[in-house]
Amino acid sequence: MDALHKLGEYEIVKRIIGLLDEMPDIPVTFGDDVSAIRIGRGRMAVFKTDMLVGKTDVPPGMSLWQAARKAVVMNVSDFAAKGIKPIAFLVSVGFPRTFLESDVEDVGRGLNAGAREYDAYIIGGDTGESSDLIISCTVIGFGSERSLVTRSGASPGDVLAVTGTFGETSSGLKILLEKLSAPTEIKEKLLKHVYLPKARLKEGLALARSRAATASIDSSDGLAISLHQLGSMSDVGFIVTDLPIPPEVERFADIHGLDPRDLALYGGEEYELVVAIKTSLWEKAYRATKMAGGTLTKIGTVTKERKVILKMKGEEEKSIPFRGWEHFKR
Amino acid sequence: MDALHKLGEYEIVKRIIGLLDEMPDIPVTFGDDVSAIRIGRGRMAVFKTDMLVGKTDVPPGMSLWQAARKAVVMNVSDFAAKGIKPIAFLVSVGFPRTFLESDVEDVGRGLNAGAREYDAYIIGGDTGESSDLIISCTVIGFGSERSLVTRSGASPGDVLAVTGTFGETSSGLKILLEKLSAPTEIKEKLLKHVYLPKARLKEGLALARSRAATASIDSSDGLAISLHQLGSMSDVGFIVTDLPIPPEVERFADIHGLDPRDLALYGGEEYELVVAIKTSLWEKAYRATKMAGGTLTKIGTVTKERKVILKMKGEEEKSIPFRGWEHFKR
Repeated sequence: MDALHKLGEYEIVKRIIGLLDEMPDIPVTFGDDVSAIRIGRGRMAVFKTDMLVGKTDVPPGMSLWQAARKAVVMNVSDFAAKGIKPIAFLVSVGFPRTFLESDVEDVGRGLNAGAREYDAYIIGGDTGESSDLIISCTVIGFGSERSLVTRSGASPGDVLAVTGTFGETSSGLKILLEKLSAPTEIKEKLLKHVYLPKARLKEGLALARSRAATASIDSSDGLAISLHQLGSMSDVGFIVTDLPIPPEVERFADIHGLDPRDLALYGGEEYELVVAIKTSLWEKAYRATKMAGGTLTKIGTVTKERKVILKMKGEEEKSIPFRGWEHFKR
Repeated sequence: MDALHKLGEYEIVKRIIGLLDEMPDIPVTFGDDVSAIRIGRGRMAVFKTDMLVGKTDVPPGMSLWQAARKAVVMNVSDFAAKGIKPIAFLVSVGFPRTFLESDVEDVGRGLNAGAREYDAYIIGGDTGESSDLIISCTVIGFGSERSLVTRSGASPGDVLAVTGTFGETSSGLKILLEKLSAPTEIKEKLLKHVYLPKARLKEGLALARSRAATASIDSSDGLAISLHQLGSMSDVGFIVTDLPIPPEVERFADIHGLDPRDLALYGGEEYELVVAIKTSLWEKAYRATKMAGGTLTKIGTVTKERKVILKMKGEEEKSIPFRGWEHFKR
C-alpha cells in the first residue's frame, strides 16, 4: 500500500472528501478555498480552516510570534481571494511540553497581532499538548451569495491577473533551507516575505466589490499549482505571457544560476491573489485594486483548452506543470 | 521559568486570553463552552473548536475510526451543553508520515460518522503532516440569543442535575492505562464509554427548549472540574448530595479497593451534561429530558457560598477539589 508521501496532500484530501456525505444545498462546493452555509436573505456564513505545523510550516529563524501571526494570515489570505472580510477566528494550539511560559505568550501575542492587523478578533480556541507546535485556525466571516468570488467562474477570454510580485518567498526559503547566500539588502527583503507574509485582503475585497473578478484563488501553494487548481475548478486553461518578478529575485537567481521564472512559478507560502477578470471590466478592476493600495498585473489570458502554458514574448510555449509546495511530498 | 506542565492547561488558556483583544459586543464571554457572533434579529452564529491529539487523547485500543468520531463528538457535546444544534464541521487533520492510505480512510469515515450521527455534515478542512495524529474540529451552529444556556446563569437555590451516570469512563481508562482487570461483561460496558462516547445532544436541546436550565456545562474534564467551572462563571457554589454511579462502576471499584465516588468525580472524557435548573421548573426539565430519550438526575443544590461540597446522606461534608483531567498536567 502506498504511504502518504506517495499520495501527497491533494490526493489525501480527495480521498477524504470522497468518504464524506455532502451537505445538501451548500452554496460553495468542496474544493474551493472556503466553505459556506446559507443564513437567509441571500447571505452566507463563510468559513476556512488552515493548520500550521511547526515542523513543516515554520522555516528556520521564524519566531513563535511570527509563526502564530502567519497561522492567522494564511487564513485571511483565503478570505481575501473570495472577497470576504474576516470577522473572527477560533484557534487550536498544540504546544510541545518543552515550551516555556514566554513561548506561550509569544504565540498568544502573535495570534492577536495577526487578527487585529486585519481588523478581526480571536474569539475562542483550545489548547493541548503535542509533539510539534500546531496552530489550527478557523476564520469566520459573512457575505452575500452573489459577491463571493469562487474558483469556478473563469471563462475563456478573461484576463488572468495577479496582485503583487512573485518569487520572493521561494528565494527566501532557499536562503533559509538550502543555505544559499545573498547580499544583505536583498536577503532582508526576501526574508521579510517569508517571516511577515501579508494577505491581500484590501485588494481582494476591492476586486469582489468591483464585480470584475470571475474567479480567484490565493497563491499559497505556488503560482503554478494555483493556476492548475483555478483551471480545474473553472474547466479552463491559461496562457501566461508575463510574470511580475521583482529585481531582488532576478538578482538572487542570477547569483545562483537559477531561473527566476521557476522561483516565481513553483514556490509556495506566497500570499498573492490570482484572479480571472472580465475583459470589459479590466480597467475597473485595475483601478479598484490601486485605490485599495495594491497592484494588479495582467499576466495572461484564460483559454478554453485545459492546459497551463508559459508563452513569453518571442519564446516558444512551454507547459507549466503541477508542481510546487505540497505537504507529505517532501 | 515554569514549564508548561507546571502551569497546566487552564492557566495556559488564561494567559493567552489575557493577551487577546476582546471583540466588542460579543454575546458569549471568553471562558464559556462556545463562542458566538450576533448575526441580526436576535440570532447568533455559534462556534466551538476542540483538538484531539493522538498521544494524549487516544487511549490504547481505540481505532482511528473511533478517534476521528470522538474528535467530532467532543465538539457536539459542548453544543449540547449550550442547547445549540450542530449544523456543520470544519476539520484539520495532521497525519503522521507513517500512516497508510487505509488509515486516512478510517479517519475520513470516522469524521463523517460522527457528524452524521448528530445530523450534521463535514463541510471543509485542511490536512498536513505532523508527528502526532491531530484532529482539530470546529463546529458551527445557529441559535437565538435568548435560548443559549451559558455557564454563568446559575442562582443559589437552583437544582443541580446531571444527565446519565458517572464513573464508567474513568474506570475504563484505568483498565486501559493502568491495566486494571475487570470481569468481561463489566469491562465491555466500561470500554464502550471510552471508545464510543455519546454527546447528550437531544437532552441538551430539550433542556434549552424547556427554558428550565439556568446554566450548563459538559463533564468532559470530569464532574469535579465542571462543577468548579460552572461555579466560577456563575459566582455560586454547589452541595452535591447524590452521585448517579452505575452498578458496573461500583463493582469495578469494589474489586480494586477504589472509591466509586472518586471515579465519578475526578474522571474526564465523559460527556454528560451538568446543569442548574430553576426549582419551579424541575418537573418540566425532567420530563423534557425523558421525552428526549434521556435521564436527568438531581444530584444537589446551587449555593451562595463559592464552595463545591460533597454531603452524602448521613455523612460529614467534604470539599470537592478542582481535580480531574487537565492537559499538560500529567
